[in-house]
Amino acid sequence: MNDNDIGILKGIANQLRIHSIEATTAAGSGHPTSCCSAADLVSALFFGHMRYDPKNPHFYNNDRFILSKGHAAPLLYAAWAEAGLFPTSDLLKLRQLGSDLEGHPTPRLPFADVATGSLGQGLGVGVGMALCARLDKLDYRTYVLLGDGECAEGAVWEAASLAGTYKLNNLIAIIDVNRLGQSQATAFGHHVEVYQERFKAFGWRTEEIDGHDLEEIDEVLAAVGLGDQPLVIIARTLKGAGVSFIQDKDGWHGKPLSQEEAVRAIAELQPGARSAAGVPIPAPTALPAPNNQAPASYPPISYKLGDAIATREAFGAALVRVGEADPRVVALDGDTKNSTYSDKFMKKFPERFTECFIAEQNMVGVATGFGTRGKVPFTSTFATFYSRAFDQIRVAGISMANLKLVGSHVGVSIGEDGPSQMGLEDISMMRSVAGSVVLYPADAVATEKMVEFMAANRGIFFLRTSRPKTPVIYNNDETFPLGSAKVVRQSATDRITVIGAGVTLYEALKAADALKAEGINITVIDAYCIKPLGKDVIRAAAQKTNNTVITVEDHYLEGGLGDAVAGELSVDGIRVHKMAVTELPHSGKPDELLAKYGINSDAIIRKVKAVIG
Amino acid sequence: MNDNDIGILKGIANQLRIHSIEATTAAGSGHPTSCCSAADLVSALFFGHMRYDPKNPHFYNNDRFILSKGHAAPLLYAAWAEAGLFPTSDLLKLRQLGSDLEGHPTPRLPFADVATGSLGQGLGVGVGMALCARLDKLDYRTYVLLGDGECAEGAVWEAASLAGTYKLNNLIAIIDVNRLGQSQATAFGHHVEVYQERFKAFGWRTEEIDGHDLEEIDEVLAAVGLGDQPLVIIARTLKGAGVSFIQDKDGWHGKPLSQEEAVRAIAELQPGARSAAGVPIPAPTALPAPNNQAPASYPPISYKLGDAIATREAFGAALVRVGEADPRVVALDGDTKNSTYSDKFMKKFPERFTECFIAEQNMVGVATGFGTRGKVPFTSTFATFYSRAFDQIRVAGISMANLKLVGSHVGVSIGEDGPSQMGLEDISMMRSVAGSVVLYPADAVATEKMVEFMAANRGIFFLRTSRPKTPVIYNNDETFPLGSAKVVRQSATDRITVIGAGVTLYEALKAADALKAEGINITVIDAYCIKPLGKDVIRAAAQKTNNTVITVEDHYLEGGLGDAVAGELSVDGIRVHKMAVTELPHSGKPDELLAKYGINSDAIIRKVKAVIG
Repeated sequence: MNDNDIGILKGIANQLRIHSIEATTAAGSGHPTSCCSAADLVSALFFGHMRYDPKNPHFYNNDRFILSKGHAAPLLYAAWAEAGLFPTSDLLKLRQLGSDLEGHPTPRLPFADVATGSLGQGLGVGVGMALCARLDKLDYRTYVLLGDGECAEGAVWEAASLAGTYKLNNLIAIIDVNRLGQSQATAFGHHVEVYQERFKAFGWRTEEIDGHDLEEIDEVLAAVGLGDQPLVIIARTLKGAGVSFIQDKDGWHGKPLSQEEAVRAIAELQPGARSAAGVPIPAPTALPAPNNQAPASYPPISYKLGDAIATREAFGAALVRVGEADPRVVALDGDTKNSTYSDKFMKKFPERFTECFIAEQNMVGVATGFGTRGKVPFTSTFATFYSRAFDQIRVAGISMANLKLVGSHVGVSIGEDGPSQMGLEDISMMRSVAGSVVLYPADAVATEKMVEFMAANRGIFFLRTSRPKTPVIYNNDETFPLGSAKVVRQSATDRITVIGAGVTLYEALKAADALKAEGINITVIDAYCIKPLGKDVIRAAAQKTNNTVITVEDHYLEGGLGDAVAGELSVDGIRVHKMAVTELPHSGKPDELLAKYGINSDAIIRKVKAVIG
Repeated sequence: MNDNDIGILKGIANQLRIHSIEATTAAGSGHPTSCCSAADLVSALFFGHMRYDPKNPHFYNNDRFILSKGHAAPLLYAAWAEAGLFPTSDLLKLRQLGSDLEGHPTPRLPFADVATGSLGQGLGVGVGMALCARLDKLDYRTYVLLGDGECAEGAVWEAASLAGTYKLNNLIAIIDVNRLGQSQATAFGHHVEVYQERFKAFGWRTEEIDGHDLEEIDEVLAAVGLGDQPLVIIARTLKGAGVSFIQDKDGWHGKPLSQEEAVRAIAELQPGARSAAGVPIPAPTALPAPNNQAPASYPPISYKLGDAIATREAFGAALVRVGEADPRVVALDGDTKNSTYSDKFMKKFPERFTECFIAEQNMVGVATGFGTRGKVPFTSTFATFYSRAFDQIRVAGISMANLKLVGSHVGVSIGEDGPSQMGLEDISMMRSVAGSVVLYPADAVATEKMVEFMAANRGIFFLRTSRPKTPVIYNNDETFPLGSAKVVRQSATDRITVIGAGVTLYEALKAADALKAEGINITVIDAYCIKPLGKDVIRAAAQKTNNTVITVEDHYLEGGLGDAVAGELSVDGIRVHKMAVTELPHSGKPDELLAKYGINSDAIIRKVKAVIG
């Protein structure tokens, strides 16, 4: 790039600063100083180096940009406005209810693949995109802009490690080292060598630059893609750069300038500022689009009634069957693939499987990244370990991501490994995620059908699988609609309705048999879909049994099946007696634990008798 | 140490291997190979270098040991049995329901300060203990044994960074680099230099050793405490070491030996094995016990009714007031102290405040560590960011930890920052934690009283604080018992009961005033304690209003206040109409958002009228 070009980029950078200040001052809130430090970097990226079609942010071979330091949203918005996607006058609507230019970016905006704002999450998503580029034989690069304080987040290092291990030389991280965090200076200030040594140790190529020297920025960006390592550009910057009275001063994080301050700041920036109108943006390469065509159907299943198959094992088989038909399916696991059975998919489709090692937060981020590129990602680990990734899952909800989270080893029924490995809070956690679907198949047929449905339908799905073997109880042509439930046992003289799922469905059926022998009939429902709950089916059954139901779940008392049923149906006068694990469990044999924690068939029988009186 | 001593340690190591194999074979499950790789390290620590009283595991100046790779539990149990705490014959009860020697260690055992088994969490707890030693002017060292695969967890690097930053030279990490994970080899195999470079970059002194050479182990352990950095001992080991047919072979993770295999293995180990009986264990230093005396009372508060104070600000004041009287109180924050107001405590008691930077998982781990040492740790950050630390919080439940988690910026009422910053799932998350208490004060008085209660009572507490200012409505002598609720508005002609908390309590009171003017009276309840729920108070009120209540919360629909009330009271025929945030929120002014998401006074008025018909 020649001096004239450098001058243009410098001018655009100052224009981006002006936009950021004007917008946050108009909004009365926001993070202008965090925008100012990164403005030169963003200018060089958006108007000199990234190859993209500004009118078509979703184009499949655009270079990708993730603003991991999501509070610098005004800067991102300014860049896309200057690139011509929408009028710059819209920028003044920042943070207004009627504008999609929110406080932190969300995919309501076409240029934000994922929501950011919870720090440390962007790099993992970038790893997913970079891996996907490789899978799809595309040459887009993925740029992730992080803050320095943000690098305290462990999620950053999980992502860094995986990127280094998989030699993702199409991934570029840029660290805006402006030395000032929210409430004080960061731990390392401007000691950029600390970041350099860390990323180097994690397998990255590193470049250190003055983040306000556009020649240096241009030079390093021109050399991306060299070698076989991911690249990190560590940019020494000043928070509030360009405005003398706020530059590099603590106490300005998240503070908009007053009207008067804004006038003074813009007076400083204006002389060197210019719009990006007319500046050519490099186009993306023309490469064939990846095959992300959903199949017309999936191959059939053929299970035999009565065969004993753990739902975790059926998941492994389903993933292969569905993956074979559906080129969009990819799988990820966190060193549990021999327990979750995702190893079956890995053996058949190694290029579509990503071993994420023992790093669940990152696994979810990487999967989210794949999902933004049109893939259908299935992640698997123990259900309880998704609690490690709850923030990533929560934000995936805001990102309206396409994610299929499969959690095995649910409940006390895992047995001797004990509570640290048991999923006892996962239904609760996943119910609270925006837009999620929570599925809990009882047998292999249900599992297979749900995996199919998950692949075929966009959204965040959570599938609970169990460790013990359970008999096949459904025919191969059974369907499992969302928002429904299955009445698996019913007669005209039922005294009460018992609702179970997974292992407790079998306990409920055992109880039903024993009670029947005593002349007490009960309705038994399989609540295979906990969210959206099959409330019409449940209500109808309950209304035939004195408006009373018993729920029984291999999960804690709070937030799971019982709360879901009571939460939705108390308004109809349905009384919900909740059976669940009500104390911290202990190691022991599965059957012992189901008994001790009061969720086995004997406990159900006692409860039925106690309730019907 | 001389050759004889080394020989003794080698013999004990083999005895520990024998115990691990016998126990897991008897149990039919467990991780013997993971125990074998670390046996020499554990032998040297427990019988040569750690200074502790084996009959008194809780002694305040014992060196601490955390088995972060918790699946090697049998090895830990064997060490303490050999140290004389309980008979070695007990070891064969591993994983049985009637024995506290569970699949992974829990503090039911006096020598396990925290539960481990969810990998990557031990080092953060160790950081907390090491910081506490410094605060208490004690010289105990904290040893944390990690696996190599475990080092993929970001939580390890959060802890490593903080330890390096605070130069915790009383913290020693030991990495058992046995190269084999659960489902495959780790990313780096036996390339110990990878771990060395990483820890070095994070500010640690590093030593690389042969993890089966007891001379080398002895040498590095003799030199702990040198310099001003934390020490990591990177030990190259073999999984299954000592047993020729399983040593360094993939496919043996988490597999017990069969009876026949165990016989063969023990035949290999027996000749070199010896018990630790009679081997002297270094005693801890005699230093004065720290002052962990709970105060008799706390100083009084003096707020004026009607004053507008945000509960987050009242928290800041309460922490200082309570901290002044209570020497056990320590505070931690994740670079949000100017927003959470924990900075007030920091300024008064800097030696009792730990800035954890933007690393919430680690903040919770560090706090847990402080709690094990008799401190009362208060953590603060935005409520939603605790989702980043949910696994650590979940495990703290298993650890029966003493933790006070304060989450600010709850709900849509934070306004323009948008959904990534809003706590909308935190009540749900915290309700599901074993043994937790969930508190939601409406005003400054309630906040202060709750902070006092939290400090005075052991357990895991979560306190929700809000961003907007709200008027003081309670007198300074008001009390807020657990498991209760406050009826703040009631008359003999109430048509329905409306239950709110935090900002929605004020919306409910506003609605009550407006409805009263129209001749419709309602009961209003402040559900300041969501878990344990004030169900008796709520039931009693509901029974006077046609068994019908409306709940309204600044939180999602799932798992929060509404589900808590319905979940507990549907059995009494109470109908619960839930008002909550039912869609992904957008940025906007607080009042706009309360209106848009249907939880303000206008919405409550409409709902009341719709329900009473």
